[in-house]
Amino acid sequence: MSKSMDERMAFLEDRIAGLEDRMAIYQLLATYGPAVDSLSAPTVGGLWTKEGIYDADGKTPYVGNEQIGNLVQGDLHQSFVQQGCGHVMSMPHIVLDGDTAVATGYSRVYVHSGDNWHVKRVSANRWELDRTADGWRVVRRLNRVLNGSEEPRRILGRELESEASGDGA
Amino acid sequence: MSKSMDERMAFLEDRIAGLEDRMAIYQLLATYGPAVDSLSAPTVGGLWTKEGIYDADGKTPYVGNEQIGNLVQGDLHQSFVQQGCGHVMSMPHIVLDGDTAVATGYSRVYVHSGDNWHVKRVSANRWELDRTADGWRVVRRLNRVLNGSEEPRRILGRELESEASGDGA
Amino acid sequence: MSKSMDERMAFLEDRIAGLEDRMAIYQLLATYGPAVDSLSAPTVGGLWTKEGIYDADGKTPYVGNEQIGNLVQGDLHQSFVQQGCGHVMSMPHIVLDGDTAVATGYSRVYVHSGDNWHVKRVSANRWELDRTADGWRVVRRLNRVLNGSEEPRRILGRELESEASGDGA
Repeated sequence: MSKSMDERMAFLEDRIAGLEDRMAIYQLLATYGPAVDSLSAPTVGGLWTKEGIYDADGKTPYVGNEQIGNLVQGDLHQSFVQQGCGHVMSMPHIVLDGDTAVATGYSRVYVHSGDNWHVKRVSANRWELDRTADGWRVVRRLNRVLNGSEEPRRILGRELESEASGDGA
Repeated sequence: MSKSMDERMAFLEDRIAGLEDRMAIYQLLATYGPAVDSLSAPTVGGLWTKEGIYDADGKTPYVGNEQIGNLVQGDLHQSFVQQGCGHVMSMPHIVLDGDTAVATGYSRVYVHSGDNWHVKRVSANRWELDRTADGWRVVRRLNRVLNGSEEPRRILGRELESEASGDGA
Repeated sequence: MSKSMDERMAFLEDRIAGLEDRMAIYQLLATYGPAVDSLSAPTVGGLWTKEGIYDADGKTPYVGNEQIGNLVQGDLHQSFVQQGCGHVMSMPHIVLDGDTAVATGYSRVYVHSGDNWHVKRVSANRWELDRTADGWRVVRRLNRVLNGSEEPRRILGRELESEASGDGA
């Protein structure tokens, strides 16, 4: 009797932990935009693990918290911020696997210009995440613009294959 | 005593199940874009029930997993993919009702063109969902472009009426 | 023994409540766009507390449910709706603190024009929320366009500071 209650409780704990993991990953991705657009270098860098990688096309990959945080000092980024910009992540597709996870989705960069904002970048993103003592952190982010080439399409499709005949959730 | 513990546990189980349902619907909607943009026809089709319907304006509704999956072969879609495109869903408003649900929100199609991405489509979406043995699946998706006509506005407002004086959540 | 079970249960209840809070705030923000784009004034107003404030740049702040709901009657809003428009919120960054919360994120207004939708507004948003007897409600929303000025950047960065060296979730 007590054992069965214990088992039910353990099962609930697992389900809650799974929900918390997903919610924490949503939160992490929702932190990135406000952090880069407010030039908050330590927050940007702190989303990654110590040896974390940010690999965006056309650039040498950034490695480690400091390099990644300092991307907000880049010329193009500074120019966007001066004009007025928003880096917006989509609600991601998430695959959890114990202490690792992959989030797949889109990022867009809107830049102010006259009476409108131009969409200067729409990219496919793959966020490889690890559970650390401080919470979920990015081990590697791949970012490739959706310009018709094959690689961004592969990034978007990669985690879907195992689900084609399975549960959408 | 044991009964009261049992009741508390059952109440928690219900609340967790409600959260899991919402999270699964977020995940389903976050799967659609990566699936169509990577031309993953079986994944696209598999988001719907066997008899599911995708009703997008200006087109004969697609019916069933295969027809819906094959929409990625359409001329316009193929042309967008060749140029570079992203189909991005907004975080939806969700109404859960036992084994059915309705998610209401926006979709946008960004298409690469020169130095920018053009927003080629912004639509109102109504996703009618059923809980199946394999998880949540789409029974019917209504998609109407926000071009100033009445129907997309009705789609956006339809599920809000019952909430006007109630709980926003 | 029974006490320990009780404690485990209470801990789970707290964690579930925290998840429900976040989910309710997502839902509230996902209600705003469909409400203004379908001209559902009572729903728009009802997202705020009785004395709630909506402070958008370039306008006298709206105060209270009725004034806020009636913003859908404004000339610019009506003109956007006639052309076809979508007000889309990003997945927000959320800081929960007991019965109050702050959600930080982006809003975009897409307006139909010829073969495209123009992005007429990209803003930084700060939603200050209270838990009320009817659920989470907006006490104050700050909305500032991302036009290169300092204030929207401060809005985006404000809640991140306490997290720079802490948990991303």
